[in-house]
Amino acid sequence: MSNADSVRVRVFSLNCWGIHYLSKHCGQRYDMIGDMLSKGEHDIVLLQEVWSEKDHLSLKKKLACSHPHSHYFKSGVIGSGLAIFSKHRILDTFLYRYSLNGYPYMAHHGDWFGGKAVGMAVLSIGSLTANVYVTHLHAEYCREKDSYLPHRVVQAWELQQFVRHTSAGADVVILGGDLNMHPQDLGNRLLRSYTGLRDSYLETAKFDGCEDGMTLIADNPFTCKKELVPFEKGIRIDYILFKGSSKTDIFCDSMSTTKGCVPDHPFPYSDHEALTSELRLESHTPPEVGKDEQSKDQDSAGKVAELVDIVTEARTEVKVGLHCAERKRCTAARTGVMGLALLFLELAIATVSWLALGAEQPFPRTSFYLLAALCFAILLTTSLLYIFYTMELKSLQGAEDQMRLAVGSLQEKLRGFPLAQPHNVQRKPPVGDPEE
Amino acid sequence: MSNADSVRVRVFSLNCWGIHYLSKHCGQRYDMIGDMLSKGEHDIVLLQEVWSEKDHLSLKKKLACSHPHSHYFKSGVIGSGLAIFSKHRILDTFLYRYSLNGYPYMAHHGDWFGGKAVGMAVLSIGSLTANVYVTHLHAEYCREKDSYLPHRVVQAWELQQFVRHTSAGADVVILGGDLNMHPQDLGNRLLRSYTGLRDSYLETAKFDGCEDGMTLIADNPFTCKKELVPFEKGIRIDYILFKGSSKTDIFCDSMSTTKGCVPDHPFPYSDHEALTSELRLESHTPPEVGKDEQSKDQDSAGKVAELVDIVTEARTEVKVGLHCAERKRCTAARTGVMGLALLFLELAIATVSWLALGAEQPFPRTSFYLLAALCFAILLTTSLLYIFYTMELKSLQGAEDQMRLAVGSLQEKLRGFPLAQPHNVQRKPPVGDPEE
Repeated sequence: MSNADSVRVRVFSLNCWGIHYLSKHCGQRYDMIGDMLSKGEHDIVLLQEVWSEKDHLSLKKKLACSHPHSHYFKSGVIGSGLAIFSKHRILDTFLYRYSLNGYPYMAHHGDWFGGKAVGMAVLSIGSLTANVYVTHLHAEYCREKDSYLPHRVVQAWELQQFVRHTSAGADVVILGGDLNMHPQDLGNRLLRSYTGLRDSYLETAKFDGCEDGMTLIADNPFTCKKELVPFEKGIRIDYILFKGSSKTDIFCDSMSTTKGCVPDHPFPYSDHEALTSELRLESHTPPEVGKDEQSKDQDSAGKVAELVDIVTEARTEVKVGLHCAERKRCTAARTGVMGLALLFLELAIATVSWLALGAEQPFPRTSFYLLAALCFAILLTTSLLYIFYTMELKSLQGAEDQMRLAVGSLQEKLRGFPLAQPHNVQRKPPVGDPEE
Repeated sequence: MSNADSVRVRVFSLNCWGIHYLSKHCGQRYDMIGDMLSKGEHDIVLLQEVWSEKDHLSLKKKLACSHPHSHYFKSGVIGSGLAIFSKHRILDTFLYRYSLNGYPYMAHHGDWFGGKAVGMAVLSIGSLTANVYVTHLHAEYCREKDSYLPHRVVQAWELQQFVRHTSAGADVVILGGDLNMHPQDLGNRLLRSYTGLRDSYLETAKFDGCEDGMTLIADNPFTCKKELVPFEKGIRIDYILFKGSSKTDIFCDSMSTTKGCVPDHPFPYSDHEALTSELRLESHTPPEVGKDEQSKDQDSAGKVAELVDIVTEARTEVKVGLHCAERKRCTAARTGVMGLALLFLELAIATVSWLALGAEQPFPRTSFYLLAALCFAILLTTSLLYIFYTMELKSLQGAEDQMRLAVGSLQEKLRGFPLAQPHNVQRKPPVGDPEE
């Protein structure tokens, strides 16, 4: 299965649920995570929700011997929560902050304050250059009525763009993190189809872990069973994805997840399960041009046609978000105008009563000030909301424009395929993805 | 000078100064710009400060024949102001929003509302793939005491990262825009040294335009002479930069700028001068390995050593920004605590006077409400400022971390050069840049 030229890389990914005072046993769990990682069994460690910089520093100290290279990505108000530890040298890092990430007034959901982003680290693995990405997308709080869906779709869109455009010079690409999307969710299909990233769970030769590769399971004492309904057993929302290049092949030899509790410990590492993928990288010479050209063409035509469908679906979702944001902005504007009208009305009444009745029986002072304060509060709040919704609108419009252009380019590409039969191909199940 | 395989590309860049009601003769100037561009003399048109989407749409309509491909980048509250028109097909676009971009409360400077960013368009020029970037960095309002310098340095840092990481697959790279930096400013050196981008003005075989390639000149009736002091004649802050790849060479055959007024028109196109570069792209086979290896090594060692210096300088600037942001955040926190203390004090006095004197002689109502409103306003404002400064801090820290890592990588690289003499090399004037 492997040859002399192959390099083995063990990749670890975990959403650490590191919210002090809110997450249960936070300190003890970090100790457990640190102890486990310091054994040095993993080459690349991708962590999410490391919200406190202190926790990152204590992990860094603990892993100084096993993983001498690390980077913590800072963003937003609290941080991005993203961290990477590596045995291999980190040559360069780069952070892309998603343009949309929930709403600041939804403080109980907290996503906005986290400054969700995708962090990239360029690693030198022997003679190979690996682009390693770690990310965490906006959470899904209610699957039936998911008001954050357009935001998450735009995040997935920006994630695929970032990976695609930054990975041209890389020999291998590895992406790990909490995507907050089920395997067949729109954003997930968009990401995998556009980038060509392959899912460790679907590609692995050997799997040891939870049923269906689930990473948020009912058996974990930290998960809220109610929130999992209608998926009683759990869901799969954490991933390790990978792809090679023209110079390097990549295979997943084995994959595992934790299964709730950890042996010899009173509780699990986190409310999410940890993922470990053992990847094998093999350098090779680029294949000759012309070989199997025709079958590749057909394959590609099918994939492009599928991609057109997915991007079109994403565009629809973004448009739904656009309408929603427009409505909200309109409401903010209308409320603001009402606040202003109320203020003018109050001033008019006060002036009239002052002029007509003199200073003896003026507009009651207490009510006057209370009402004025209310008007100002309304004006300020609606102004801030108006600005925020305008920014949301711009980002959604920007993503929609890019998607429209992408569909155009893809359709142009499709026209270029000599044997393309888009309509038949479109309905054909996609290649190499048993889940679809 | 050229051979059969060469492709000529004329690139145009202009900061359009498109602020309706504030910029002079805005509509008429757009008409002039549209008329000039519709002649089709330019292959790629990069515009900045197209703040109104309406203006973009009317330009798009006017240039539908001459430049059938276009993209308008949306961002921030008003927009990014960035637009691209092209004769060549745009395959893909991507936008990177700078993490720092001034302050929302500096509304009279307006940069924050513009959502400054760098837009990328992947163009197909014959058989070549060109990554074309258009950007506009934060303005410099006072050179002596430039409070936005750390923000602009971070923007330049993020710009070089974005260009470097996204251009690996491109045959040629072209960047145009208003960098708001003089040729020797830190951010400019950072950008050019790190990416290897070359300056049209410095590289051109033939130049026709303002003295020293200036793009903001005293002779332009729209510029404010006072703001140019101490540079009486003007400054050069707009650029067209370019670089080739291992497969493609790129040369600048000629370059020109407008010189204030436009013949047969009452006024110039904008307060900035327009730039036009005629680039020649030549495909070639990658050079043999081993050829001139030693001289290249020495050259590279010199460049890397220079880069270490520049990044270190940038780090220092970012650290200054960090201290400043920390101080401001601290002031916001202290003011907030004072507001809270005042509120408690007021409540205590009101309670005591109510308990001791009964309802007959309470705390004067008017003063009570006014003071309470003031306290709330202080609390709200300082909270918002605290959140904003925390985000600023995180971004600055993030950039500083990345710069530290970059310096480490560069130093490591320097150690690898067999003949590297960093200290001598460091002082050597950089190669191929007559201005430095």
